[in-house]
Amino acid sequence: MNGGIIHLYNEPRIISSACVVGNEEHIGPLGDLFDGYSSDPRFGMKTWESAESEMQRRAFLYALKKGSVKCEDISAVFAGDLQNQCVASTYGLLPYNAPYIGLYGACSTLAEGLVLSSMLIDSKKLCTVAVSASSHFCAAERQFRFPLEYGSQRPPTAQRTVTAAGTFILSQSGADIRICDVLIGRICDSGISDISNMGAAMAPAAADTLCRYFAQSQKRPSDFDLILTGDLGYEGIKILKDLCFAKGLDLSGNLNDCGLLIYSASEQDVHAGGSGCGCSAAVMSGYIMKRLKDKTLKNILLMCTGAMMSPTSLLQGQSIPSIAHLVHIRG
Amino acid sequence: MNGGIIHLYNEPRIISSACVVGNEEHIGPLGDLFDGYSSDPRFGMKTWESAESEMQRRAFLYALKKGSVKCEDISAVFAGDLQNQCVASTYGLLPYNAPYIGLYGACSTLAEGLVLSSMLIDSKKLCTVAVSASSHFCAAERQFRFPLEYGSQRPPTAQRTVTAAGTFILSQSGADIRICDVLIGRICDSGISDISNMGAAMAPAAADTLCRYFAQSQKRPSDFDLILTGDLGYEGIKILKDLCFAKGLDLSGNLNDCGLLIYSASEQDVHAGGSGCGCSAAVMSGYIMKRLKDKTLKNILLMCTGAMMSPTSLLQGQSIPSIAHLVHIRG
Repeated sequence: MNGGIIHLYNEPRIISSACVVGNEEHIGPLGDLFDGYSSDPRFGMKTWESAESEMQRRAFLYALKKGSVKCEDISAVFAGDLQNQCVASTYGLLPYNAPYIGLYGACSTLAEGLVLSSMLIDSKKLCTVAVSASSHFCAAERQFRFPLEYGSQRPPTAQRTVTAAGTFILSQSGADIRICDVLIGRICDSGISDISNMGAAMAPAAADTLCRYFAQSQKRPSDFDLILTGDLGYEGIKILKDLCFAKGLDLSGNLNDCGLLIYSASEQDVHAGGSGCGCSAAVMSGYIMKRLKDKTLKNILLMCTGAMMSPTSLLQGQSIPSIAHLVHIRG
Repeated sequence: MNGGIIHLYNEPRIISSACVVGNEEHIGPLGDLFDGYSSDPRFGMKTWESAESEMQRRAFLYALKKGSVKCEDISAVFAGDLQNQCVASTYGLLPYNAPYIGLYGACSTLAEGLVLSSMLIDSKKLCTVAVSASSHFCAAERQFRFPLEYGSQRPPTAQRTVTAAGTFILSQSGADIRICDVLIGRICDSGISDISNMGAAMAPAAADTLCRYFAQSQKRPSDFDLILTGDLGYEGIKILKDLCFAKGLDLSGNLNDCGLLIYSASEQDVHAGGSGCGCSAAVMSGYIMKRLKDKTLKNILLMCTGAMMSPTSLLQGQSIPSIAHLVHIRG
């Protein structure tokens, strides 16, 4: 069926994950939970763009080590990021010489990679797979908005692109954290064209995916310990709640967002919260994976949202299309 | 095994395909074989970028019609292009509301999409799938090199980005053209940094994939009617032959390249041949699919190559990483 939930009867396992973050993420409320950080936004490299590649490289290496997996055993890497032509991933993972599937899903990349790789592991087409995603505040700002040197003021609806890279290793067995079913997102466009309000642009895609999931699965939001969106931020999460409530879906009990968790709204100047491919990658790897392991979370929905515009398309007057992929994970 | 051939025992079928091209492609040697064209490089739209989306939209629609497939029956669309953040695909396929998987594989996108979708159809995770890819000469030139208005001279090693979009519909049955096995590419970087010599940058990736394929399959090049690369052009195809010959693989008998087939070298001013995601999509859909149907080709390898740099990465002094995905197709 078009737009149907895809059940994974062999329940592929997430056997390890790792993430590397920037300084703002390190000083945030989850700072101690990440595997590595650098107070230098360039991570020792010449440019912010190369710094993002270096984060991807380190996260990939840490995830292999934590899972006791050799690079030679990786059947494929699914990776993507926000940089033009996704070069952060390409250069970052080049040293490892693994079969490589490049994705573009904007900030939905982690979920897109988990959806694809879990289907292929479930069907035994691939054995052990890595999913990597990253973003970098400075690289994203100059590419999508203004170079930081301009000192532009950001409006309250703007989110801060998270400086982080995360890698997840999936396999057919070897751990308790399993992916049970997935739902592929559809492109939605509600006419938002404000580059400083990604939450409003992405919330309709999140609502579309979530409403399809609950309608088809016959489940209720209360059946899950947590429904976690990727990076809707304070603006987008409110819109998602309203959109779903209008369709009879009450998310008030257990909805949260990686973009709200990664920074302290009261102590950090991050406006509407975190965003970027690295946001869900870092929060999932650093925080949620630990809670799935220690069983304080047992049954969650992860839904990463992506805003799929380009700087050129915005200058040409196009609105912002978005997408949301969903992954059902059990601890 | 890392980097192993993936066999598709149920042999997913390509049930239809369609492509839409620009004027230069229409006046080329394969011009009569394409499903649609426009002598207006804007395809009636305001910008070249939107024109590329319009090509994607039309190719998708034609492919559905030719395969007698309803849009509601498409389980997922796998799509990508060369524009920043792959917006040609996003905006082009937005009207169809299908589950959407965004890819970034540069000019390897068609093969990347065929690899992923055929694995998922073979394992019955998805039923009917569309794979779409596109490129536009004018949009690509101004994004990667110089705006056309500058009138820059292109060196002999430069290729012309093909203005074309193609869509392939795959399903579990319903046609004779089948995908037997696939091989996922690995990122290669031989240090080439000349933005006007994509052939040289991509040939090492093509050699890596092809040598792995023949080493593992125990087959010889002469076992195939055609080994078809996506867009190596005159420069890249020579380098590929040399690289493979040095590894004991003689490709002189049946190697060809979509970038050589789409234009007439003697009558069209296209330097080293065609390139771009649309190059392999158009030649495969317009020409090769017909020859597979009329049995003048029965057993081919399609290997699309992609150069994965960004304009920013080149300005920052990075060399051009590349990749090549392989698909074994039987008529």
